[in-house]
Amino acid sequence: MTNETGAHFLLENLLKSGVDTCFANPGTSEMHLTAAMEDYPDVTKVLCLFEGGATGAADGYARMTRKPAATLLHLGPGLANGLANLHNAKKAGSSMINIVGDHTTFHKKYDAPLNSDVEGTARPYSDWVKTTQGPGTLGTDAAEAIAAAKSHGGQIATLIIPADVAWSERDAELVYVTPTQQAPESAAIEQALQWLQNGKPTGIILGQDALFGEGLKLAGQIAAGSGATLLSPYASARTERGYDLPETTRIPFPVDAAVATLSRFEQLILIGADEPVAFFAYPGKPSRVAPETAKLMSVATPRDDIGRALKQLATLIGPAKSPTPESLNVPVSAGALTPDLLTDVVAASVTEGLIIVDEGVTSTRSFFGKSAGCPRHDYLVNVGGSIGAGLPLALGAGIACPDRPVLCLSGDGSAAFTLQALWSMARHNLNVTTIICANNSYEILKGEMFRVGAMTPDGPKNPLLELDGPCMNWVSLAEGFGVSAQRCETAEDLTAVLQTSLASPGPYLIEAAL
Amino acid sequence: MTNETGAHFLLENLLKSGVDTCFANPGTSEMHLTAAMEDYPDVTKVLCLFEGGATGAADGYARMTRKPAATLLHLGPGLANGLANLHNAKKAGSSMINIVGDHTTFHKKYDAPLNSDVEGTARPYSDWVKTTQGPGTLGTDAAEAIAAAKSHGGQIATLIIPADVAWSERDAELVYVTPTQQAPESAAIEQALQWLQNGKPTGIILGQDALFGEGLKLAGQIAAGSGATLLSPYASARTERGYDLPETTRIPFPVDAAVATLSRFEQLILIGADEPVAFFAYPGKPSRVAPETAKLMSVATPRDDIGRALKQLATLIGPAKSPTPESLNVPVSAGALTPDLLTDVVAASVTEGLIIVDEGVTSTRSFFGKSAGCPRHDYLVNVGGSIGAGLPLALGAGIACPDRPVLCLSGDGSAAFTLQALWSMARHNLNVTTIICANNSYEILKGEMFRVGAMTPDGPKNPLLELDGPCMNWVSLAEGFGVSAQRCETAEDLTAVLQTSLASPGPYLIEAAL
Repeated sequence: MTNETGAHFLLENLLKSGVDTCFANPGTSEMHLTAAMEDYPDVTKVLCLFEGGATGAADGYARMTRKPAATLLHLGPGLANGLANLHNAKKAGSSMINIVGDHTTFHKKYDAPLNSDVEGTARPYSDWVKTTQGPGTLGTDAAEAIAAAKSHGGQIATLIIPADVAWSERDAELVYVTPTQQAPESAAIEQALQWLQNGKPTGIILGQDALFGEGLKLAGQIAAGSGATLLSPYASARTERGYDLPETTRIPFPVDAAVATLSRFEQLILIGADEPVAFFAYPGKPSRVAPETAKLMSVATPRDDIGRALKQLATLIGPAKSPTPESLNVPVSAGALTPDLLTDVVAASVTEGLIIVDEGVTSTRSFFGKSAGCPRHDYLVNVGGSIGAGLPLALGAGIACPDRPVLCLSGDGSAAFTLQALWSMARHNLNVTTIICANNSYEILKGEMFRVGAMTPDGPKNPLLELDGPCMNWVSLAEGFGVSAQRCETAEDLTAVLQTSLASPGPYLIEAAL
Repeated sequence: MTNETGAHFLLENLLKSGVDTCFANPGTSEMHLTAAMEDYPDVTKVLCLFEGGATGAADGYARMTRKPAATLLHLGPGLANGLANLHNAKKAGSSMINIVGDHTTFHKKYDAPLNSDVEGTARPYSDWVKTTQGPGTLGTDAAEAIAAAKSHGGQIATLIIPADVAWSERDAELVYVTPTQQAPESAAIEQALQWLQNGKPTGIILGQDALFGEGLKLAGQIAAGSGATLLSPYASARTERGYDLPETTRIPFPVDAAVATLSRFEQLILIGADEPVAFFAYPGKPSRVAPETAKLMSVATPRDDIGRALKQLATLIGPAKSPTPESLNVPVSAGALTPDLLTDVVAASVTEGLIIVDEGVTSTRSFFGKSAGCPRHDYLVNVGGSIGAGLPLALGAGIACPDRPVLCLSGDGSAAFTLQALWSMARHNLNVTTIICANNSYEILKGEMFRVGAMTPDGPKNPLLELDGPCMNWVSLAEGFGVSAQRCETAEDLTAVLQTSLASPGPYLIEAAL
């Protein structure tokens, strides 16, 4: 091997653009890329046992760093294993560059066993897809992929590299392509300003960069100066929260509750969010949850320059006095764990700088309401709704922010989709604490079925919704992947174990008996 | 709920066509289908914690029963999680009907979080894809899906059902569509006969139904009557083996060995197999492994009526004396396990009727050569090459043949992709014994990298190929999913534990230390 292959050239392209982290599950078609990686010590390489761990981790990484990681995936089927979390990442507006190996250009036509339509596999879950046809176009292809990943606030770019492109001599120049993003239209800013000053009940639905950092502060200023209410979609990529930060009202998951929350507004202004719609449709319930009589306008879509829109609007509104910070004290009762007690314990245990990934589904639904007054923390949820994002997101957040503790709240059913991420947490000794909310049931589905009358709470159980035969032993599963673990049955136990774990290096898993 | 919904109607269609087994991981969009399933006790419902377990199990089920199972998957991302094993099933020519829920017809346009291009997701890994547009077309759509799954010896059919089609009142009649399959052309049969009688060195490469049951016996008769050599592709869906059955020479995985195996043939006749090609292309090596000078002809593609082709050809060849059965005795040495000792132990432990699923990759490569003289058994391997098929195939074989023991040989890296299948084995108390060949390494990739010079055996390790930091504890992982397990370090231990497990009901896992 020399440093003169296409594989080396591609890695240099990525490094020069700041893409220095790769979540990988390689195979034979990627062996020259895998070998070349060892020649670049500046690349952080995270081996994942399952590809959904890689794409989900890259999502978590992008949310915390606001820059893309690369994934390295093996042909169409390896990419396919990563698609569900690509879906989630795409819906979260995360930035990512998937490097997918393919058969050599001259072997493809023989339809060997692992051959499939890689571009077709990528397309439904990527914003940009391209197969490099030869070493000569690798420079422009890589530059386009990187620019695509960085455009519109973050996109999924999938670059397919035939094995012979990776193993051939480098034959291209480094190229740079500028990422693009739509600036806000001044007419929209003016109309929003008018709505904010006309005295009508107004909600501002925030999304993406409006929910953390500078964006959130500007949104708080706009709300304080106009009297508007800040809202956020049920599922947002990253929400910064804490007692001294502007608070948003989260639009609930159940349709009726969402409709009720929005019913008092006559005007809804979207900044970085789409119009709120129901997660699913139900017989006789609306798809759109905003009042039919309310007027809606968008200042910036999730893909636009949200920071600029907020800055312009905040400048027009002028400075405003922020509400006095209110630190809430969450009282924790003792006793056998329930979902409500569990979220009490977690809210009481939040420390400054904690990153929380919440895929606790029904078990942790009460957490968001309790944690507004906690010390400052980041709150990440599954945005695309494909369950199995939680553990991988926590892995990626841990790689992105090795100095911050990460807490992953997961359902037991949820964690079972992508539990292999635990192994990568152990491998990198990340301070990630995972709480498995072990209710041995697809509880969310039961709730949905009760709601539509497809099942009754006092009727017979449907075995397709029960995880209790056998119950999973999460202590055993975690230890199998090299993560120490403990089962907690009471609030007192959970409090003690959780607080120790958050303060200690390395991963830990807690099976919370519900 | 009444029995009068579209969901009920669909299930009745499936049952009337003999599709009575469903591997499922349902979600909200499938809740009416999930509820309706409880109204049909004749449907065997197998809950899978991960969708790749469902599609892989349906593959194993189809290989053993030669009929389709249904899968039930949640929207585009749930289907996506099943794609890698759909790829393997498609390459294996397995029959399957994927029922995938989608958003209601009226909600789709709002692009809710879980919305994606479901048809686009299905297409690269399905032979037939359709979305039912309303309750009125469900009868023809279901019939077409069933016929597609049963056509050409087995296909992947994906039927997408919007939630409102499932919950609406039934509004269609039961319809029947005839599956199709190409009969052999008489010109091809005649040419093959001529080749078999012209005295030149001739190989017959068998695939699909030619490798077990009646097909294999006919193939044996043709070989005995003509002097031709029977061959099989490296990866075949199902091979029946045993001391009193015709034996096939398996074309090796490494390109050089494959070329050497085929070099002596001047004529190659394909019956149920495609032309053999290299799994991957390597610098300076050929893609086609048959001699350039050899003549090739196809009597039946893997999609054609292979049984009929064999019958016609065997009739023309006439009866022939089969070679005398030769029962081989595999001597087993004692001592610390090595891949070679491990396959000795397994070959010595094969019992009549055993179903073996082999995804042991490098660790079990010597098994096939040793097991020709074993009692009759079925041998299933990963045909599409996307690792992670083993455990799900074993699950499906166990559901298909509850009275036969199943032995799953798996690499540790392989098993980590889809280990959730263990839970479903425990749930259904299947007599599946899984041996994890624990070498803590992606050994196959190292071999490939040595071969092309991307790494040297005495050079530094590449962390992306090492699974030893931390080593997985497979006893712990299995117990976490409710499967009893034990680690074996010697051949004596493995022999004792394996033979007990095969003879005992319920699943068991053995971590074989290599």
